[in-house]
Amino acid sequence: MSISPEKPARLILHEVGPRDGLQMESQVVPLEKKEAWLRDLMDSGVDIIQVGSFVHPIKVPQMADTDELFRRLTKDKKSPAILSGLALNEKGLERGLACGVEMFCLGASASETHSMKNTGMDTEESTRRIIGAAKTALSAGKKVQVSVQSAFGCGFEGPISEERVLNMVRAYLEAGLRNISLADTAGHAHPAQVERLFRTVLRLDPAIECACHFHNTYGLGMANMFAAMRAGVTSFETSFAGLGGCPFTKVAAGNVATEDFVHVFQLEDLRKDVNLDKLITVARGVAGHFGRDMQGFVYKTGPIKARNAVKTQA
Amino acid sequence: MSISPEKPARLILHEVGPRDGLQMESQVVPLEKKEAWLRDLMDSGVDIIQVGSFVHPIKVPQMADTDELFRRLTKDKKSPAILSGLALNEKGLERGLACGVEMFCLGASASETHSMKNTGMDTEESTRRIIGAAKTALSAGKKVQVSVQSAFGCGFEGPISEERVLNMVRAYLEAGLRNISLADTAGHAHPAQVERLFRTVLRLDPAIECACHFHNTYGLGMANMFAAMRAGVTSFETSFAGLGGCPFTKVAAGNVATEDFVHVFQLEDLRKDVNLDKLITVARGVAGHFGRDMQGFVYKTGPIKARNAVKTQA
Repeated sequence: MSISPEKPARLILHEVGPRDGLQMESQVVPLEKKEAWLRDLMDSGVDIIQVGSFVHPIKVPQMADTDELFRRLTKDKKSPAILSGLALNEKGLERGLACGVEMFCLGASASETHSMKNTGMDTEESTRRIIGAAKTALSAGKKVQVSVQSAFGCGFEGPISEERVLNMVRAYLEAGLRNISLADTAGHAHPAQVERLFRTVLRLDPAIECACHFHNTYGLGMANMFAAMRAGVTSFETSFAGLGGCPFTKVAAGNVATEDFVHVFQLEDLRKDVNLDKLITVARGVAGHFGRDMQGFVYKTGPIKARNAVKTQA
Repeated sequence: MSISPEKPARLILHEVGPRDGLQMESQVVPLEKKEAWLRDLMDSGVDIIQVGSFVHPIKVPQMADTDELFRRLTKDKKSPAILSGLALNEKGLERGLACGVEMFCLGASASETHSMKNTGMDTEESTRRIIGAAKTALSAGKKVQVSVQSAFGCGFEGPISEERVLNMVRAYLEAGLRNISLADTAGHAHPAQVERLFRTVLRLDPAIECACHFHNTYGLGMANMFAAMRAGVTSFETSFAGLGGCPFTKVAAGNVATEDFVHVFQLEDLRKDVNLDKLITVARGVAGHFGRDMQGFVYKTGPIKARNAVKTQA
């Protein structure tokens, strides 16, 4: 599938496993292990790496070491990878500014219920606060990505109207924020919807750099990534080994696995400059650490080659 | 994602789990259990159900009861579902003709190595024999689908040239066979390749009814299904719970899960007439029988609805 001819651009890989993957694991990963995975990711050639989030350490103990990780990784940094951090309010922004975040990911939810549960604010107030934080981050010379969470449906509310999503996007654009991610927080997105919504968003302003984030709750993550690509999305958020979602519910969530996505990028000649072996090594390390079978495929199979262990079938 | 405007048609669901799924399980499922699953599938609204294959019972003991299953299921049959059976040679065809097969699925491999290993014949001879068998089946008033196995790559040989695939398709067309399936036997297909190859095949003859069959070895099954749909493919082979591939290698294969595919068909308004609940019940029965976690998603999560067990994530 070729990139939309109207918008040929370098496709950006944003590894969010250290944040989106690890935040959902009940087990807190030791700082040194995280740091080792992150250093391997920084050597792999992926463009952006989400180191962690700035949330309350009591609420999300898995992310308590985000500040320290940023301090360590930005000291004498040589990798061209951009280190991103997620913040949901001004307090998080302050912490991120103090510890060396290079790109702030700031988001508000299009679902009122999700917004209230997550932040105690409705969508409008939350969006306004995020825009304020984004402006502060830009003034401080940081890169900024703003997102619309629950853009394709909500586990609490069900369908979310496109108009709600577009209103948030318009608010971001009016504030001069053009790096915009739509996140399928609950995993409700399906390919036709993804293609339609991103095309609509991209028509609002041809200068938008669109990013996408899909959860694989219903097995549609990879198909949604390709639908987004067709629509002109140029930045893709993935997670090592497909980690993400809560392993202690019966609901399989997960993300598209970074190494699966880079693998198909290589098959399709979309990106040849990423070290897939290194990504597979990290994914195996992560899966090994938690000691269970993850959703990713290529960390188990290795990349396609003739005479590999694949048993042919009729 | 809408169906290719050049070829609007009813999309056909072909459940191949009873054959492609169960043949790979070391454990032989008791006849009565298979029969119960098959009767539920016949009530579900899927269009075609592959009951089993006619191969040597010593070689593939999992399929030894195929003849008996056909006899039972075709007796006083009321379901409109078409019951298909796979045959790889004339002997299989004879057995199928004797027990009531309604649609014969006959295939040869585009990979010389795969062809020799599977049938002891090269691609050309195997294709010729399949065409002969197909003509006999047609003469007997049966529906026939012919396939090109290893159409997108081979676990032994690696890439397979499009010209090899097209030569087989041309041979089928010259023999008047227009119901043609391309099978991704090893799971090497990727979306751009799928779209390109099916478009090329469909240009050979606008009357071809194209079917597709993807293994999910590298996590691309669902994305490939959508790529095939874009190209004008109208028949889709899937397997309950995503079963397929050998559970005793470290390679995850599997098929696209029938219930996952029907679920997204409902989300996209492509087919609303299939009983998803019944398919989920069958998939749960199958997964429960083998007692392990299968690749399918929706049999675990249930269909999308608000306030279901999905835990929302940032």
